[in-house]
Amino acid sequence: MKSRRSWSVTASDLARNTFNPIRTVVESMKLTPNPEKPMIALSIGDPTIFGNLCPSEEIVEAVVESVRSMKYNGYAPSTGYEEARNVVASYVSVPGATVEAKDIILCSGCSCALDLCISVLANPGQNILVPRPGFPLYRTLAEGLGIRTKFYDLKPENGWEVDLEQLEAQIDDQTAAIVLNNPSNPCGSVYSRSHLNAILQVAARNFVPIIADEIYDYFVFPGHEFHPLASLTNEVPILTCGGLTKRYLIPGWRMGWIVVHDRNEALSSEVRKGLQSLSQRIIGSSTILQGALSRILTQTPPEFFQSTIAQVYDNARLAHQLLSGLPGMRPIMPSGAMYMMVGVDMTNFPEFENDLQFVERMVTEESVFCLPGRCFDYPNYFRIVLTVPELQLREACHRISQFCTAHYVAPLTLGKEESLSNGHIHHELHNGIVTVIEP
Amino acid sequence: MKSRRSWSVTASDLARNTFNPIRTVVESMKLTPNPEKPMIALSIGDPTIFGNLCPSEEIVEAVVESVRSMKYNGYAPSTGYEEARNVVASYVSVPGATVEAKDIILCSGCSCALDLCISVLANPGQNILVPRPGFPLYRTLAEGLGIRTKFYDLKPENGWEVDLEQLEAQIDDQTAAIVLNNPSNPCGSVYSRSHLNAILQVAARNFVPIIADEIYDYFVFPGHEFHPLASLTNEVPILTCGGLTKRYLIPGWRMGWIVVHDRNEALSSEVRKGLQSLSQRIIGSSTILQGALSRILTQTPPEFFQSTIAQVYDNARLAHQLLSGLPGMRPIMPSGAMYMMVGVDMTNFPEFENDLQFVERMVTEESVFCLPGRCFDYPNYFRIVLTVPELQLREACHRISQFCTAHYVAPLTLGKEESLSNGHIHHELHNGIVTVIEP
Repeated sequence: MKSRRSWSVTASDLARNTFNPIRTVVESMKLTPNPEKPMIALSIGDPTIFGNLCPSEEIVEAVVESVRSMKYNGYAPSTGYEEARNVVASYVSVPGATVEAKDIILCSGCSCALDLCISVLANPGQNILVPRPGFPLYRTLAEGLGIRTKFYDLKPENGWEVDLEQLEAQIDDQTAAIVLNNPSNPCGSVYSRSHLNAILQVAARNFVPIIADEIYDYFVFPGHEFHPLASLTNEVPILTCGGLTKRYLIPGWRMGWIVVHDRNEALSSEVRKGLQSLSQRIIGSSTILQGALSRILTQTPPEFFQSTIAQVYDNARLAHQLLSGLPGMRPIMPSGAMYMMVGVDMTNFPEFENDLQFVERMVTEESVFCLPGRCFDYPNYFRIVLTVPELQLREACHRISQFCTAHYVAPLTLGKEESLSNGHIHHELHNGIVTVIEP
Repeated sequence: MKSRRSWSVTASDLARNTFNPIRTVVESMKLTPNPEKPMIALSIGDPTIFGNLCPSEEIVEAVVESVRSMKYNGYAPSTGYEEARNVVASYVSVPGATVEAKDIILCSGCSCALDLCISVLANPGQNILVPRPGFPLYRTLAEGLGIRTKFYDLKPENGWEVDLEQLEAQIDDQTAAIVLNNPSNPCGSVYSRSHLNAILQVAARNFVPIIADEIYDYFVFPGHEFHPLASLTNEVPILTCGGLTKRYLIPGWRMGWIVVHDRNEALSSEVRKGLQSLSQRIIGSSTILQGALSRILTQTPPEFFQSTIAQVYDNARLAHQLLSGLPGMRPIMPSGAMYMMVGVDMTNFPEFENDLQFVERMVTEESVFCLPGRCFDYPNYFRIVLTVPELQLREACHRISQFCTAHYVAPLTLGKEESLSNGHIHHELHNGIVTVIEP
């Protein structure tokens, strides 16, 4: 039976429905920098791009040793060499969440790990709950497969904690998983033990497993502590996604993993086998990296992480200090990761139709580009990355300051309470200076 | 609305439907080697596993240089660095099929390349045509997504050429693509220009695009020539899948690619964009490899390939010579790649219920394991890999010979024509010696 009468090759629904919200938003913008000012991109979530943050020598030499050993040229099992999975198992094991090689699946980067976790838990038509604001890849992966995403809101005024009531209200009989990102991109939030416990209680009450995106594990600023979610529950089954990407400053190398934290034997019957099957589609991560894992995870000096975090922390304080008190700006100090969200009170910038236009004009006039909040489904904010060299960050904040001062319009009704369309922060105006009153 | 009342986490249909036929067949077998004979595995399609075939020093040092350069730590575009795609474009370009960087998508191995190509062309419920016998990954990738696979038959007596009439008969209005594997696993066939043209005519008549799996490109024995499929048509749109895996003897490193050979602009409107979107799910292949690609593809000495092919060719002739004329055996001399299919006339081995039992018993008695043909949807054959060291191959063939002689039973009716359940080869019996009469 002959089929077509002409060459009209269409793309599948999977391909059509797989889209990158950041790309979609950014491509819709007119970004023409001011030719008189060198461009400063505070938009790129790649810590290595500015050259100020590099992987340690140990990591590089571990790969050199691995590739020269001639021991890691062949196919590994689709979930990774047992030796490599053993090393990851000891690396991620903590009291309350000890795992073995059989609980580890090595993946081609943490994106692939998230892809497998979402793909194994949800069917088309079902839904997963994702944070708002949140990392857009969750939507890219889910919606491509016809899996719906429902948002649960984070509360900026509470350090981006989860709105627990709203989270629970979003759960329905088609909810296959909750995706939790801690520490978080784009917020830079780090949740307390008690808040994580509260989230776990919601999951437990409703029997919903959690996909814990912990790619920024232990990337926290002084005074904060990272708690692996799985270490806090013996009831909720958790698939934790992690990898070398961020802490080791090698995002391009593509070494990620899934840690299966089974509880109540909820994952043993089907999900483990499902992950194993899905891992056979592309056969895991490069064996060169697998061969280097042991040395990377056991011999990287603590000073390496401390120095990276110190630089990002200094940048966070610098940017927060320089942007705080700017008219119409509300930077929210992060507790970890590599980003800071900055709220914009659009009511103070009436000449711009929306926050996209605000960001566009900041490029046109000041050659400073920050990702608009709606890349993270969160309008009236923009995200700045904190991994840029200090001088660039200082200059960028200076230009943002000029831009705000130039375009800020004080509300006619002095003293009247205004509120951001996100965040519900109240502030008062005195001579055009905003004083933020945190609850 | 609360959902479940207990922890019953099920796996998605995608996970349940993704299975590996080889694993399924092998796991169903009882494989207990003869303790008195060391095991010889002729089953593993990994050329590096025996240690006799290693990547060249240039390849290793190219990676060392790449990782030490500190230039390839960050994220690459999801389709790969333009520099790397440029190098691949020149490497794969031939007269009649010249491509540019924009036509290349770098992937995490050729499996990932095949995954993207099948995923972008076919929807659940549609079908792709795959060869029988054929590489089982096509089924793994398609059926997981609910895409049906329909077989077109290869004719062993004609050097495994495609049964063109049957191929065309299999095309229906739901056929999204034809998958063609040349040179082939498991057959080791290499198609002539005229046969490839005949296949292209079938595709053209029916407006069906082709996924050309050319991971064994140029891996052909003396007297044979490899023709890139895309170089033979200016009418049929082709997605060619390739990579470093086989020729460079580094399957574990995971560097593959898709080459978009658009014809009649059939792929420009949707498929290119679709591949770009799908590549964003896991963000391509390791940047370490991408940084090494230029040196690998331009500086590997020709002697390296010649020596690999020479070893495999010698093994092919050795195995064919040793197995030819064995009672009940019909080895089919390959023209390239790394494998040989051996037909078994089960009518001569009445004590075995089927070919699986035949292979099982060869393990039990002789500690020689070959993959049964039904791993490739082709019963009454087994596949041997030709990348083992010569001494092991010689010993293995010796044991296979002993096994056949021990279990062969000459048909009662001498002179009567028998035929293999696959292949339709006619042979005559003289004193228990089979003389194969090729058509």
